[in-house]
Amino acid sequence: MNQRNPKRIDKPIFSAAAQLPKSERQFLRSLQQKKYRYLHKKFLIEGLKPVLETIDSGFPVEKIYVSNDFLNKLNVPDFETLKAQNENLQCVDTADIQYISTLSTPEGIVALGKMISEQVPLDDLALYPAVYLYEINDPGNLGAILRTARWFGIKSVMLSPNSVDLFSPKVVRSSMGAHFAVSCYQNVLFDDLYDHSTRNEIPILAAEMSGAAPDQVQTNRWILVMGSETHGLPEDIINNATSVIGIPRHGSGESLNLSVSVGILFYKLTNS
Amino acid sequence: MNQRNPKRIDKPIFSAAAQLPKSERQFLRSLQQKKYRYLHKKFLIEGLKPVLETIDSGFPVEKIYVSNDFLNKLNVPDFETLKAQNENLQCVDTADIQYISTLSTPEGIVALGKMISEQVPLDDLALYPAVYLYEINDPGNLGAILRTARWFGIKSVMLSPNSVDLFSPKVVRSSMGAHFAVSCYQNVLFDDLYDHSTRNEIPILAAEMSGAAPDQVQTNRWILVMGSETHGLPEDIINNATSVIGIPRHGSGESLNLSVSVGILFYKLTNS
Repeated sequence: MNQRNPKRIDKPIFSAAAQLPKSERQFLRSLQQKKYRYLHKKFLIEGLKPVLETIDSGFPVEKIYVSNDFLNKLNVPDFETLKAQNENLQCVDTADIQYISTLSTPEGIVALGKMISEQVPLDDLALYPAVYLYEINDPGNLGAILRTARWFGIKSVMLSPNSVDLFSPKVVRSSMGAHFAVSCYQNVLFDDLYDHSTRNEIPILAAEMSGAAPDQVQTNRWILVMGSETHGLPEDIINNATSVIGIPRHGSGESLNLSVSVGILFYKLTNS
Repeated sequence: MNQRNPKRIDKPIFSAAAQLPKSERQFLRSLQQKKYRYLHKKFLIEGLKPVLETIDSGFPVEKIYVSNDFLNKLNVPDFETLKAQNENLQCVDTADIQYISTLSTPEGIVALGKMISEQVPLDDLALYPAVYLYEINDPGNLGAILRTARWFGIKSVMLSPNSVDLFSPKVVRSSMGAHFAVSCYQNVLFDDLYDHSTRNEIPILAAEMSGAAPDQVQTNRWILVMGSETHGLPEDIINNATSVIGIPRHGSGESLNLSVSVGILFYKLTNS
């Protein structure tokens, strides 16, 4: 099976494309909005790679919608993986995919994911190393941070209130399935995190552009805390941190991209 | 002057908004396309921060277009900076900004930059450390890489043929002015880079997901070479590299975001 010269699949084993019922189209499109995602506890996964990564992670995928054009261009190994999800796979009109998708030129595959949400008290969680993101708003950055967290073996990603939604289509797309490999928590208050870290003697490492390069870290028990690119961290978080760390600047410029900063700090803290 | 509580400016000193002549609107919009950017040697800079950073870098900004709404919301220090560019500042209809901009919700400010392009032979260049990007196609990644290069004092960013255009509006927006602080070169062939590096004894460090963590680097004379997230580097580049380096994985996942990988390698190589 040669991934570079995909075999054309001329006769998919799926039923021919049919237009989706209007109610289903509208339901799926409504999931572009946060309120409907949380009402139904469902979300959209767009693009082949994110869908395959989600399946690989063992996360529940309720249904996969593909266009016929997309199926015909698919290579054999990917086709086999999707076929294994056969029961949930539905071939639909290209226009349906266009209607459901948030992308202007969709790839031709959209899946319906089911949220698993449990309320876990912080003290029962105890998964380190961890990162706490304070009021970050860029979905592409959050997706890249999740992907980087997975790579470096970061166990928990926590979001403060007023952060971008974990299940927004762009976050799901850019995390490449990392959502489902890393434990994610939303609406975590800094005060609760602080109490938890004090009780359990976990250092809070707050990152600021002017902070010093982090010292050697001996254990994996730490919580990295980062703010948004525009606003950084508020003073009360900086003041309550165990230490304030940063990334030495050898050139010029005001700041780094948030996901780049987080990546560098993950690298430094896990490679000490 | 408090940046957090911007003073409203009720009477801008600029002439009232007027609709742009049709030919000027069309000319500006045409710069969304690469062929017109290179025909006219002009490009668009969208958003306040990128425009201010470009002005700060001393790069020639031919004209700045702002909407009245935008001017009225502007804080005093930023207003002063733009006022210093008074001669080139023009207040236009919100609809004009919408027409020129590539963004669905533009900020209300678009500037016209002038390309400075000189053909510099590689041997006369000799600006290290440097990074060579092979067929990368994501404008957001290139912008973030330029910003990171500036932060770490990387002197040159070189792009292979078939890479994203340095002057595409999204690259310009996400680099936050770093374009103009780092020397950038397009259409550089790997063969030319290889000959140059051999003659001048500059090591080529090719990055690959499976590469080993880089050794200590004693000097700033190195060229980091990276491919795209999807395709990586071709074999002939890997085979001709002085060493192949990578980022140790402690968790799982297939790859990192390109700009995150570049940031980690810049950090490691400049902090040895």
